[in-house]
Amino acid sequence: MTFAATILTLFPDMFPGPLGRSLAGRALEEGIWSLEVRDIRDSATDRHRSVDDSPAGGGPGMVMRADVVAAAIDAACPAGDERPRLLMSPRGRPLDQARVRTLATGGGAVILAGRFEGVDERVIAGRGLEEVSLGDFVLSGGEIAAMALLDAAVRLLPGVMGNAISAESESFADGLLEYPQYTRPADFEGQPIPEVLTSGNHGRIAEWRRREALRLTAERRPDLIALRESTKPAD
Amino acid sequence: MTFAATILTLFPDMFPGPLGRSLAGRALEEGIWSLEVRDIRDSATDRHRSVDDSPAGGGPGMVMRADVVAAAIDAACPAGDERPRLLMSPRGRPLDQARVRTLATGGGAVILAGRFEGVDERVIAGRGLEEVSLGDFVLSGGEIAAMALLDAAVRLLPGVMGNAISAESESFADGLLEYPQYTRPADFEGQPIPEVLTSGNHGRIAEWRRREALRLTAERRPDLIALRESTKPAD
Repeated sequence: MTFAATILTLFPDMFPGPLGRSLAGRALEEGIWSLEVRDIRDSATDRHRSVDDSPAGGGPGMVMRADVVAAAIDAACPAGDERPRLLMSPRGRPLDQARVRTLATGGGAVILAGRFEGVDERVIAGRGLEEVSLGDFVLSGGEIAAMALLDAAVRLLPGVMGNAISAESESFADGLLEYPQYTRPADFEGQPIPEVLTSGNHGRIAEWRRREALRLTAERRPDLIALRESTKPAD
Repeated sequence: MTFAATILTLFPDMFPGPLGRSLAGRALEEGIWSLEVRDIRDSATDRHRSVDDSPAGGGPGMVMRADVVAAAIDAACPAGDERPRLLMSPRGRPLDQARVRTLATGGGAVILAGRFEGVDERVIAGRGLEEVSLGDFVLSGGEIAAMALLDAAVRLLPGVMGNAISAESESFADGLLEYPQYTRPADFEGQPIPEVLTSGNHGRIAEWRRREALRLTAERRPDLIALRESTKPAD
């Protein structure tokens, strides 16, 4: 089954952009996923093609209109389209690798890239949009956020990564950050590669990597360690 | 002072990409910030221009070489260049709006977009790279992450946003998610705009928005509420 992504945006020519290159770009050419980009402005109804208006109650910026966004979503999602409808927004649930994995095993996603001060709340509820956040920072729009989400999902599709096992040893695969990596040259500015890694002893190497992953995670992300403890199956 | 961004990447033609459009693109044209894109491969030393090699100790994927990355950084950063050196990596400290604000008030950033299984640890330490993560998910490379970071920083530069006050009312400005927004039409599929917002009573509107921001944040991000409590100045 193909992974079908539909983007609703005011900047259709930002796409495919970086998604047209490298892993995601090759997979796009090979038909492993598809990308449909729709201009929200095509769903405007007045002769100025307006898509936004000032916030009810006052305040700075502009808000995307419920009626225009609803028309854009309805045009993009034919009856029976069961792909999740995502709104990239700093108010959403922070994206994590578990959500990415779920998305990658589904049929794709319809992604609304918000702009301006926000999107009228009534269309978020009325069209069942799931708000997804990249993190606790604010972008000028949802386009780059949508690219990040799609890049993360597409690389997990079957046939995209050269070595499928990569996905299993990387950060978050087991709730830990990835251990430090080294490669040739053996000496870099007087620093050698840690001896264990060149020992050829696979047991010691695996143990060292495990310990380093735990140490790094405890140092940098104690929240991940706490999360692991709390979700561990009882013995 | 201009905000000068330098990107080190294996995919230079991904840039400026989405950063060449909309707010960031306009600001780039106006010289409010600058973007230098450097191909890491230009710092390779062998005739195959190799930039990566297999991980010491075994395992899938490829690791970016310390010597090549060091040469790329040294070529990009003349003596006295005090811009922070960032490595986009899921092992880094998660980006937040406070870090974005600090970056936006500085002179720019040198950003290494990692690829493959990772970057040799010795060059991360040896060149003082600050690992920055977008969130707990894995991208195929650091390019889209670098775009997100730059988009977030550039919009905060003086003269970029039409209405500077927007930055003060948005998500995370006061540690809360943004309140719901509404705009015309007054009726959307039978749903009216909340009465308080059309009351003209500025005090009630401000109070309602504050309450909604608190409610949304408590519902969706109790971690942010806990963080606010713990950093509140003592009475």
